[in-house]
Amino acid sequence: WSPDSKSIAYLQLDTSRELIYPHADLLTVLARQEPQRYPKAGSPNADARLGVVSASGGRTQWMDLGEMRDRLLARVYWYPDSKRLAAFRLNRVQSELHIFSADAATGHARVLIHDKDPYWINLDDDFFFLPKSNRILRGADRDGHRHLLLHDADGKLLTQLTRGDWDVTGVPHVDEAGGRVWIESTQASPIERHIYSVSLQGGEPRRLTRDKGTHTASVSPTGEYWLDSYSALDSPPQVTLRDAAAGAIAVVRSPNRAPLEEFHFQRTELLNFKGSDGTLFYARLIKPVNFDPAKKYPAVVMVYGGPHAQTVRDMYAGINWDQVLANRGFVIWQMDNRGSGGRGHAWESQINRRFGKLELSDQLEGVKHLTSLGFVDPARIGISGWSFGGYMTLMGMLRAPGLFQAGISGAPVTDWRLYDTIYTERYMGLPSENEDGYHDSSPVHFAKELKGHLMLVHNYGDDNVLYQNNLLMQVELQKAGKQFDLLVYPQKAHGVTGALTAHMREAMTNFFERHLMGVN
Amino acid sequence: WSPDSKSIAYLQLDTSRELIYPHADLLTVLARQEPQRYPKAGSPNADARLGVVSASGGRTQWMDLGEMRDRLLARVYWYPDSKRLAAFRLNRVQSELHIFSADAATGHARVLIHDKDPYWINLDDDFFFLPKSNRILRGADRDGHRHLLLHDADGKLLTQLTRGDWDVTGVPHVDEAGGRVWIESTQASPIERHIYSVSLQGGEPRRLTRDKGTHTASVSPTGEYWLDSYSALDSPPQVTLRDAAAGAIAVVRSPNRAPLEEFHFQRTELLNFKGSDGTLFYARLIKPVNFDPAKKYPAVVMVYGGPHAQTVRDMYAGINWDQVLANRGFVIWQMDNRGSGGRGHAWESQINRRFGKLELSDQLEGVKHLTSLGFVDPARIGISGWSFGGYMTLMGMLRAPGLFQAGISGAPVTDWRLYDTIYTERYMGLPSENEDGYHDSSPVHFAKELKGHLMLVHNYGDDNVLYQNNLLMQVELQKAGKQFDLLVYPQKAHGVTGALTAHMREAMTNFFERHLMGVN
Repeated sequence: WSPDSKSIAYLQLDTSRELIYPHADLLTVLARQEPQRYPKAGSPNADARLGVVSASGGRTQWMDLGEMRDRLLARVYWYPDSKRLAAFRLNRVQSELHIFSADAATGHARVLIHDKDPYWINLDDDFFFLPKSNRILRGADRDGHRHLLLHDADGKLLTQLTRGDWDVTGVPHVDEAGGRVWIESTQASPIERHIYSVSLQGGEPRRLTRDKGTHTASVSPTGEYWLDSYSALDSPPQVTLRDAAAGAIAVVRSPNRAPLEEFHFQRTELLNFKGSDGTLFYARLIKPVNFDPAKKYPAVVMVYGGPHAQTVRDMYAGINWDQVLANRGFVIWQMDNRGSGGRGHAWESQINRRFGKLELSDQLEGVKHLTSLGFVDPARIGISGWSFGGYMTLMGMLRAPGLFQAGISGAPVTDWRLYDTIYTERYMGLPSENEDGYHDSSPVHFAKELKGHLMLVHNYGDDNVLYQNNLLMQVELQKAGKQFDLLVYPQKAHGVTGALTAHMREAMTNFFERHLMGVN
Repeated sequence: WSPDSKSIAYLQLDTSRELIYPHADLLTVLARQEPQRYPKAGSPNADARLGVVSASGGRTQWMDLGEMRDRLLARVYWYPDSKRLAAFRLNRVQSELHIFSADAATGHARVLIHDKDPYWINLDDDFFFLPKSNRILRGADRDGHRHLLLHDADGKLLTQLTRGDWDVTGVPHVDEAGGRVWIESTQASPIERHIYSVSLQGGEPRRLTRDKGTHTASVSPTGEYWLDSYSALDSPPQVTLRDAAAGAIAVVRSPNRAPLEEFHFQRTELLNFKGSDGTLFYARLIKPVNFDPAKKYPAVVMVYGGPHAQTVRDMYAGINWDQVLANRGFVIWQMDNRGSGGRGHAWESQINRRFGKLELSDQLEGVKHLTSLGFVDPARIGISGWSFGGYMTLMGMLRAPGLFQAGISGAPVTDWRLYDTIYTERYMGLPSENEDGYHDSSPVHFAKELKGHLMLVHNYGDDNVLYQNNLLMQVELQKAGKQFDLLVYPQKAHGVTGALTAHMREAMTNFFERHLMGVN
């Protein structure tokens, strides 16, 4: 809807060139096909166009954004005057951004901002019009970190508002009249999030939150009041109503500590260490129940490892499977390798065009550090993860064979040609232009390297990481004469949820107990 | 082709009412749908009609066989004069047979023979015209065994040519001029097959083969010479050319004993025993390598158990997985329960309308006899089978919980509503008319009874026993909180073949060694 409520801007997607994936519903006796469009890396995307239609009806005015074939229409914002639209067009591999200013009545558009990035361009929802001063405020990764930029109405860059070895991770509120922007950032620490306000004149951000951990803000339209949602590793979520000066007015939600008291919760420790080339890594560690530093324990490395996600953070994580394992006597270890989120574009983009290599080498530095602590038995280390973490588990089992005695790979991509265009091409480019990268990044090509015990887990109806990934990995392992365990669940989702979770976790726990503790 | 080569009789199948099963090819990156018609029990069959067209072209003359909806057109034979056709029409559940004589030129047909059976009607290829005497010779199960009948040209029964507590299992040759029919039968023993000739005047069959075991015959058109293909349990296949009096003229193929000498072959013993109600059962037994009668061994029960098949026979079986297991220290046991083949219609039809109950109860008698032999540890018995044998394995694990400590179920039917019309309805009737029977016969309803260790094995592309069977069994086991092992292979076939066999057998062997011998 346009701000004046008179028009609607909409996206038209012609999906007819997209590949069809042969999903099927086998859960009823009759069974049926459920084909679904799924553009795989290198295959045609939907053709998109942007139209505006009056709320009172009539014909659509299409915006002329130039060549749209093999382009992505990624964001659209109405100008405050309801007469124009800002439309974000990316090239297919997302290394080049054109922000158009389009006239809603005529469809005529001109380029306002043109960005290029040697790796890829991240888009967030940090784009704002400042109508009183006729300026634009937006976030971008110009210097290896995400910071706020001010442009004039023609798109000309006026100034970079924030700067430093940290990232603006959110913009909860823009107060043009008051001349301040509220931001969420990693300025205090990459593993924390605090709320700051920044003057539109520039200068140092003013920190509004004190408690160590993770804060997000929901600000009232006038900026007079805001909700500070907070948690930390040992502190369940709480929500506080604050005034503009950050003074607490009321506690809206108190932390619920009951689960922590009900179960035998092992404390999670946050730590950091330096890799052999001096890179600083953050990690979390859970010691097993009745820990005795003189003993040697089996360990399970929990891994995600993919771009944008950050697994080591000072925030409440609830009670998870790792607590079960810690209570069964396992050391739990998790670290964020290069390529992960929260450390800026320069940190994340090092994995460009080649998944799994740098990420795994960093994870191996993590295992080295873990074993150096003296209480982990290096001959009894497992690895487990889901999605990109399932992928990393396979890479660990196949590209560092023998290091992990057991691995549980949940819903992994096993051949990057099977995953979707938008995600895959952003990091890996097109398969036709990066054949070696796709090959070397894909576990299916390394089945014969398997040494430890492997379990594959996947939902049969996974509509994100297709079950096909699992099947093709199985086929390669079978061809290579490698035995493995297999768990398949019937859900039409990327994750296993509900009552089946207990079944899955039991199987996974049994697997690690069997192969890392000798429990049959 | 008509015998005079002037006409072609053909079947036209309208499959448009048949269910479509959503097969998919996931083995290539692009993947694709491969939908396939698959009529499940109770769902519409193809509508069939029989046409005759001149070999020189022109329009088809359709045969008028009366109501064809929900009927099966099961066999068609040309009369020797090329002017008429014998067409076999069964009702849907195959308890009623009409053999029509149809005029190829006009399509007009009349009923020649009408059979009914309280259970089901077996069809074989034992239907012959005797043109010189204007008679028809055919096989049928009138008295609980398969015997030959002589009819006049109008279908009137003249005489039953063979009779007795044994079955005609094949008719290799009819010599009307010489007045003799060559048959293969179980007259000597249900577990052997011998060749006999029978006078068209009646009287006792004349036995042509002597060597204990299994014979099949391929007879020259004049009956002067025939090939006697023979094997026995310890005797690999050999083929002998014989004259009409059964004298050996030449050995066409000598037995190849090399594999028996190359491997450590454990001898298979044939035996029989009586069940608690006096029923006589046949069984085979392999004792493990270095057998010591004073020891207690783990055992694996091999099972098929389904109609028409007979697993305990005096014929060469090659070197199979059971030899691997016997060499690893397992006792191998296999018996044929009621419902199985080779013992006649009265024996097989006892399982009518209810799969798995009588079959399992007989198998349990087998286990009782096996343990009574004194060298099997009743706490370490496994069970394994494929197809109906996979089904029986599930029934053993779920309907006799605790008896078998481990079971490997290959490509099982898990819900009889998922299997095809032709097979399932023959034995079970329609789902709508036998709801309890379908329920009680289907493993999916008894997942919560599982006690021992279960492994499921299935080809993902199985076009006979659909993979859906496996998936729905998994879902029920998961819902019931039961853990199980899973092996999935990618072949588009009911059996796992080629290089993958070794992978599968290794997994299966490991499974039994783990759960019945404590090998981890």
